[in-house]
Amino acid sequence: MISVSIIGAGNVATHLYKAFIKAETISVVQWYNRDIRKLAMFQSDVETIDNLSELKPADIYIIAVSDDAISHISEQLPFENRFVVHTSGSVSVYDIDKKNRRGVFYPLQTFSKNVPVAMETVPICIETIGKKDAPLLKLLGKSMGCKTHKVNSDQRRTLHLAAVFVNNFTNQLYRVAHEITESEGVEFDILKPLILETANKVQNISPYLAQTGPAKRNDKKTIKKHLKLLENEQHQAIYKLLTASIKKTQGVSNKKVVKNKTK
Amino acid sequence: MISVSIIGAGNVATHLYKAFIKAETISVVQWYNRDIRKLAMFQSDVETIDNLSELKPADIYIIAVSDDAISHISEQLPFENRFVVHTSGSVSVYDIDKKNRRGVFYPLQTFSKNVPVAMETVPICIETIGKKDAPLLKLLGKSMGCKTHKVNSDQRRTLHLAAVFVNNFTNQLYRVAHEITESEGVEFDILKPLILETANKVQNISPYLAQTGPAKRNDKKTIKKHLKLLENEQHQAIYKLLTASIKKTQGVSNKKVVKNKTK
Repeated sequence: MISVSIIGAGNVATHLYKAFIKAETISVVQWYNRDIRKLAMFQSDVETIDNLSELKPADIYIIAVSDDAISHISEQLPFENRFVVHTSGSVSVYDIDKKNRRGVFYPLQTFSKNVPVAMETVPICIETIGKKDAPLLKLLGKSMGCKTHKVNSDQRRTLHLAAVFVNNFTNQLYRVAHEITESEGVEFDILKPLILETANKVQNISPYLAQTGPAKRNDKKTIKKHLKLLENEQHQAIYKLLTASIKKTQGVSNKKVVKNKTK
Repeated sequence: MISVSIIGAGNVATHLYKAFIKAETISVVQWYNRDIRKLAMFQSDVETIDNLSELKPADIYIIAVSDDAISHISEQLPFENRFVVHTSGSVSVYDIDKKNRRGVFYPLQTFSKNVPVAMETVPICIETIGKKDAPLLKLLGKSMGCKTHKVNSDQRRTLHLAAVFVNNFTNQLYRVAHEITESEGVEFDILKPLILETANKVQNISPYLAQTGPAKRNDKKTIKKHLKLLENEQHQAIYKLLTASIKKTQGVSNKKVVKNKTK
């Protein structure tokens, strides 16, 4: 049995809590939040506290708070030499106060309030300063049914950055498409199967191979038509920049025929 | 029974052919391509031809060729007053020669060679010049198990443009993430569940509500870190532009506190 206590009440904390109580070999000792009212709906199932001094012994303390608050709250922990981890993609493991053993337990997924996530599909990136602590974090992930990946700080930061591209930025492209269709009175819903298929496709082939469309074909006529259709300047800028990026990736030249040209 | 003949041998033509022969109430009369060798693997199942003069009567002739070739090939059809449609998202229905009844049968999906597509999930956008021809196109789509949507030319063009954002541009963001992770020796595979979940999320909630991340939170510290990490200038430009776009959508101000400021 692995005993854990959770610190924080945001989306990550809540999704982790729900996954922990489902797992047979994990017990949640306590759940701390500065504002205990945010934990009210769970207080019949777990001991909720709003005072760090009440924290009881646990195998792992999981700090799932905003990035900026991790360092401060780790300093305030009223014990030493216990195992404390944070769940952030971009914060250094050294931001945790060194009076405790330190690690990172970073679930690479997008968590929103009230949107259930199949936790067993979530990859967990783990990192520990002490080598001895790594197996316990790995076991915690495994007990939740997750795949774990040992990554160093640089790799975790890189994954977090790449996640912004495939999640936040991709979602913004969906939003732009929503704005474009809405302005013409077309249902955004018609695009939903395409959105899913685009994500599905790269599960099996590389994004490079999966690419199609006017930029890859260097179809100047269509690109020109599209730019004319776009009324919003920011949408135009996104269209131009990503078209240029596709062309570069796919090795499409802007010049049609360049013969015997010297610099 | 609806009889169709297909003109062209690209990805759309091939996926349509496969869906047609699966449907009980659709018969494929002939399949034309200029280069008949491209149809060799299907010649035992369907009559393949490379001469337009050999085209027999059919309820619908489906021109699934590159955008630029649609007009020319429609002029060359050796008959009049039959029903001819193209499958393009951006070409006008009037590009089809007016000697025949004209329409559009545009499957809004991404088709790659050798990547099977569950055709019944594909929305088909239909358009006809003659009102009387619309029910037949609708029935064709329904016979394939697809949802059909009547759209006018402007709406179809808008959908095609929006599709470039949610498909080609999104796929390019996956590619950028691939480049970023590869440069740090991290497996791109770790991002795949996040890619799927991002697409899944907007099946039920709007992209606006689904948004998370540093740009939405106006987390300047993380944004600065990310821009520092990005070595490729084009990646930096994409990061900046999409961050600005998210901020605009989500109503995040760039100025922290602007008090009593007059222009």
